Order: sequence, then C-alpha cells, then structure tokens
Amino acid sequence: MYDLILSNALLRGRRVDVAVAAGRFAAVEPAGTLARAEALERLDATGFLLRPPFYNTHTHQAMTLLRGIDDDCPLMDWLTRCIWPREARLTPEAVYAGTRLAILEGLRSGCVAFNDMYFHQPAILRAADEMGVRARVALMYMDQVSDHIENDALLALCREGGLPPRLGLALAPHALYTTTPEILRRVVGLADRLGLPIHIHAAETRDEVRIARERFGAESPIAYLDACGILRPGTVLAHCCQVSEDDLGRIAAQGCYVAHCPQSNQKLASGVFPWALAAKHGVAITVGTDGAASNNGLSMIAEAKAAALSAKLNAGAPDALAFADLDRAVTETAAAALGFPNAGRIAPSADADFILVSLGHPAFAAGGDPDANFVYAADPSAVHSVYCLGRPLLRAGHHPDEAAILADAARAARTIR
Amino acid sequence: MYDLILSNALLRGRRVDVAVAAGRFAAVEPAGTLARAEALERLDATGFLLRPPFYNTHTHQAMTLLRGIDDDCPLMDWLTRCIWPREARLTPEAVYAGTRLAILEGLRSGCVAFNDMYFHQPAILRAADEMGVRARVALMYMDQVSDHIENDALLALCREGGLPPRLGLALAPHALYTTTPEILRRVVGLADRLGLPIHIHAAETRDEVRIARERFGAESPIAYLDACGILRPGTVLAHCCQVSEDDLGRIAAQGCYVAHCPQSNQKLASGVFPWALAAKHGVAITVGTDGAASNNGLSMIAEAKAAALSAKLNAGAPDALAFADLDRAVTETAAAALGFPNAGRIAPSADADFILVSLGHPAFAAGGDPDANFVYAADPSAVHSVYCLGRPLLRAGHHPDEAAILADAARAARTIR
Repeated sequence: MYDLILSNALLRGRRVDVAVAAGRFAAVEPAGTLARAEALERLDATGFLLRPPFYNTHTHQAMTLLRGIDDDCPLMDWLTRCIWPREARLTPEAVYAGTRLAILEGLRSGCVAFNDMYFHQPAILRAADEMGVRARVALMYMDQVSDHIENDALLALCREGGLPPRLGLALAPHALYTTTPEILRRVVGLADRLGLPIHIHAAETRDEVRIARERFGAESPIAYLDACGILRPGTVLAHCCQVSEDDLGRIAAQGCYVAHCPQSNQKLASGVFPWALAAKHGVAITVGTDGAASNNGLSMIAEAKAAALSAKLNAGAPDALAFADLDRAVTETAAAALGFPNAGRIAPSADADFILVSLGHPAFAAGGDPDANFVYAADPSAVHSVYCLGRPLLRAGHHPDEAAILADAARAARTIR
Repeated sequence: MYDLILSNALLRGRRVDVAVAAGRFAAVEPAGTLARAEALERLDATGFLLRPPFYNTHTHQAMTLLRGIDDDCPLMDWLTRCIWPREARLTPEAVYAGTRLAILEGLRSGCVAFNDMYFHQPAILRAADEMGVRARVALMYMDQVSDHIENDALLALCREGGLPPRLGLALAPHALYTTTPEILRRVVGLADRLGLPIHIHAAETRDEVRIARERFGAESPIAYLDACGILRPGTVLAHCCQVSEDDLGRIAAQGCYVAHCPQSNQKLASGVFPWALAAKHGVAITVGTDGAASNNGLSMIAEAKAAALSAKLNAGAPDALAFADLDRAVTETAAAALGFPNAGRIAPSADADFILVSLGHPAFAAGGDPDANFVYAADPSAVHSVYCLGRPLLRAGHHPDEAAILADAARAARTIR
C-alpha cells in the first residue's frame, strides 16, 4: 500500500507512474504500470510535468519586509541609511512573518528549501517547521551583532537532536569584512565540535578584495578564508563574483559549494560569478536568490534563468552552460549543499520532493524540452503543486494559509518601515 | 456617459477613479470623485494597481514555434543547422499561430504592443488585428529572402490607409551583414516616399563590428548605418550592444530609438547595451524581448527587470538606473517608438491602454513602491486585466481564445520542428 500514486506524469520527456511511501519515492515506472497498485491517494498527473523542486542555497528570507526600500541607492548609503536602522527594529515576530512570506514566494516558484542567514533564528525555524519546507538556518557571527543567547539555546537544541530532519543549523560568520580572524577560527572550532557546516558571504565585491589585501595581507578573499580554515567540505560560499582561477581551484579542492546569486550581484553591481570557469575547475555550483531587498523577487525560476544567461554572457559563448548542468545545479547539487543528499532527484528511494508544473502554460504549447521551457520561458503561474517529503505544501498554485501570511507580513512590515 | 469607470485603483501610490470614453482616458480623479458619474460599465478596482502596459519594441513573434530548439549551441551552428531549415518550412498559417501564441504570452505579462520583424506579414497583421493588440509589422529586406510579392500588396494597403490605427508598417532591412549598401539606400528612399519608419538589427555582435570594418570600411556598425541614411528620426535600432560613445551621440542626434534586448544579448553572448552611458547621451531607450528562440520567455516583466539589472551591473553602480527612468522606457518611450505617441501613460486624453495588477500577489504584501515591486518582484500571475484603447483583451489573467491559441500553436509547431 503506497501513500500516493501519481499517474501519467511527464518526467524528462517520458510518461511515468510514480509511487510515494513514507516520504520517499517507492517506484518510478512507465505510465500504466501502477494502474492497479493500491494507494491512499491517487493523482492523475496527465498534463503535468514532474520535476524535482528547487533548493535555494543563499537567502535572508525575512528581508521580504524590506523589499524595495530605497532601491537605486549607492550600496553603503543604502545599508547604513535604509537597511540597518530598520533591521534594528526587527522582532522575532516580524522575522517569523517575513520568513513565512518568503517561503510562500519560494513555494509558488517551485522551491522547497532555503539556506538562511538572518537574525532571530528560532523564529525562522518555527516558520520553516510549520510550513513544511526544508531549511538550514545559520547562527550568525558578526562584530556588531550578537545573538549569542538565542544561539546557545539553539546549539543545545541541536545537541539534543531536537530538530526534525528537514531542518538543520549552520554557522555563519557574516563575511570577512564584518569578522576578525579570531572569530573565524572560533567558528571553525565550533563547526568541528558540533559537526555543523559553514555558510558565509565570500568574494562578493571588489571592496572585499581590497579589504582582504589591505586589512589581512591576503592574496584574495578566498585565500584568506582558506587560511582561516573556513574552506572545508560542505561550506557554502555565497556570491564568489571576485575569484581567480587559483581561488576556484581552492574552492573545488576543499569540497565547498558556491551559492551563485546572479540577480543580486547584478542589482548591487558586485560582479559576475564565472560559472563556466568554475565548472572547469570542478566547483560544486548552486544558485540562491539572496534576500528580497537585493533582488527583489524570490522566484527560483527567474534566478535559475538569470544564472544561465549570466554564465553564457560571462563566458562569451551561448554553449557555455548546457541546460542539464544548470538543472542539476539548482536541484540535486543544491539539495546536497543544504545537507539533503537524498533529495533533488526523482528516483526510487530518493526523498519524495517534487513539483507538478501545468503543461497548459503557454511556454509549453509549441514543444521543445519541457524542463528547459519551464526554467527559461515559464513563471510561477505554471507551478501547480509542490511536495516536500511526500507532503503537499502548495496545491493548484495556492497555499492554505496564504491570506494570513500576506496579512501578517503587511502588519510586520508597517512596524519597521 | 462614459464607456467605463474604474473606481479606487492605485495609480502611482494614489487612489483614483478613472473614466474611459471612445478609447481614451476621459478623467483621472481622486478616488470617490466619479462615484455618481454615469458609465456603461463600472469596475471596482480596489486591490488593483493601475499601470500603463508594456510596449515590446523588438521581437520575432512567430519564433514561439522554435522556442528552445537546440539551445546551448554556438550561434552560427544554431542558425544554419537548427533555425533556418525550420524557418524555410514556415507557412502563413504557422506564422499566424505562432504570432497568436506570442501575443497571448505578451498579454499575460501586461504587454499590448509589439514591433515585429518576420516573414508572412499579412498573417502577423491578421493575428494582431483579431487579438486587439497594437503592432508595427516590418517588411523585410535581406539578400537571401524575398517576400516582395506580399510586401507589394501590403504597401498598397498602407497607401490606401487600409490598416486600423493600432496597426502600422515599418521597413526592416534585416542587418548590415545580410544586406548591401544598395539595399539600405533603396529602403531609405522607400521610407521617405511612404513615410514609414525603419526597424533594423544594429551593432548586436562583435562579428558585426568586424564586418562593418572589413566589408564596408566603416568605423563602426552605427557609423555605417548612419552613412547609409538608416539613422533617421523614428528608426528603431535593435540591440546596440557594440557601441562607442560616438555611436551613442549619433543615435541620439538622429532621433533614433534603441530596442534593448538584455536577455537575448546574454543568451547569445552578444554583449551588453550600455544603458547609463546611452542615457547620458540622450538616447531614447526602450526594451524588447527579441524572439522566443533567443530568450526564451516573452514576459515583458522579466525583460524590464533584466534591463535594470543589466544597466546597474554594466555601469558598476546600483544607482545607475532609477526605477522611474526604466518605467518610462518600457511604457511611454516605447509606445512612441512604435508610433503611438498618445499611448503609454495614464492621463486625461491619452489612449486608454492600461493594465490592472492584483495587489494580492506576494510581491506587494510588505509594502514599498507597488510599481517597482510589480517589475522587480512579481510575475505574470499578478496581471489581472489588460486593456488596449479601452477594450479588454485579458481578464482575470485569461484570454477568451486561450485554449484554441495553444492548440493551434502546438499543431503549427509539429509541422516545422
């Protein structure tokens, strides 16, 4: 007896029946094969594309509350005058509301997981837990900001194994320019003792390159982070716009992931992550939206497309990135980067994370590879259903708590804008 | 007696009542003012953002039928092996079906007009006419391709004033590398005699720069086109990735429009149109999607956002392009570029082209400038209604002929793929 059978879905160009049991794919067979199998629920997926969902590897979810505040400002002015004073007013309740809004936006674009770096982590975990998505939530380390009290409670929770398996923690020294070598080495020690991964902004801007050289006497931001022990298996390096071939070699050799955030990097004029060059060096590449204040959308469909276009322009060649490689980066590789190595693919025994995309969207009408058409020509209106570990989180494009999520976010935003 | 009254819509941050009569805005007043005015139809626009629609200034609509064919191929191989052999099989019926699909995709993203350059122009005009959108359809001139018979009939139609005012013709020598100086001069003479504008691919790639120099001994593609008379008031120059400051000065001085196609230029690795520099020179800038084979989406929301991000990265400054300037480029300036100087703004006596955007989309929940949030964080699922000259073309996100349009496009695509 299966929990769920999807019949006649389109999977990588073939019609399949798929069975789900205990949160995993139990069978993926040619269409018709499971016609007589027993299941608690059957879903006729005719007219739907079946895909793994997206996994967003770098974001600050609650920044939905700060979306569009003084866009078109120079960066330091924007941070010091517009963003930081408002962030100082953030309460756990506001972060909870802003995170729920971001999770909703992610789900609408077919995304079930996020790698977060923000304040008030218990509120973030509560939002992710209640909404059924996967999340890795980082304990932050900065010169200016201390949330150690919350962190201590969270670390205790982590030691006791108190988090469900779809939620995890990470350690996030914010960036090299907001920390010291001592903080970074302390974080590395903590990562060793607790078995937690590291998540950090790295080599984002030319200013960061200058600081690495002038303040720390390092060859590059990546070289400095490597010397501090931050580059280690599983570390997620967000941005990496300002990297040399040596840097890319180091990132690959140490087993780190890059979270490429093309739209944020364009908006803030930070630079361009050199995808094709990084791939040549064997770097594990993934894609993130960054926060809504620096994007400003949270659609992973749009972000994946932006990543492909950016890679082609950057390499000077339309064939610099094949769709299959992009698709793997935003699904299977990204799931592994978030600590879910059994997710991100549709195959027997893999975690049953999947989305159903309506092939009635105009992007699919005239044929071509449906998966590529989804990423390159569709939009959230094509996303019909989103499942995480076999559980439906979005159906017919809507979330059951949508109205409350929007109203709560509106209320929270008014308190800080 | 008005034809239509919209009450309580959100326009540039203010609540307004808007009256439409005879295809134009008759009144735009503070909300409540028109509560007792008489109208054939009243629409409560509470919860909706009222905006001018987008005007797409460069596309090849029927290439929806070729969407995604052998993406990730080097350019010349892609054109010669994948695109051109299939285009040779295009019939007027297929172009009609492919154009209707593209118009539908445009409408879903809030776009009412397109500047087309493709074969079988009568079929394109028929699609635009029936679907109620605005279009400027170009008669093409290339070495390899001749559709003079159709063109002669169209020119006769044009002389007789047989086209409705929302449809127009243009003359499109394809590009400098597919024409000769003689063809270009003949087109300029024809433009003079018939009072038709010119639409051309210009300064798209580095190859084109090389050809301008080697084949025509010109300083640049723009300098060559200027010498041939192509640069004249109203000419739409598509792409302009490879332009110098001298070129930008020439484009501005001659009163041409640039149709910036950021996603196509990225996908084909053509280069980047330098928006901020062009604006400094006074160039009239607009945005186009290009065809679906080189984008691959046709959402003008996505294209406008890509244009802003591209401008900021290219200039190396987040404040390189203010939202108000982007917004004007994709509405009022673009409408003028297509020959509709009375459209693209919501003001008394302007043509009643407008869209209603649902503020229930998550992009709007947490506040901020709604117009910027629409372009930078929303997607076609937020577009509720689209009106052109006071006539509704899309309602509740759907077109009345949607099913037939999708089915016809599927059938047409099968004949050429």
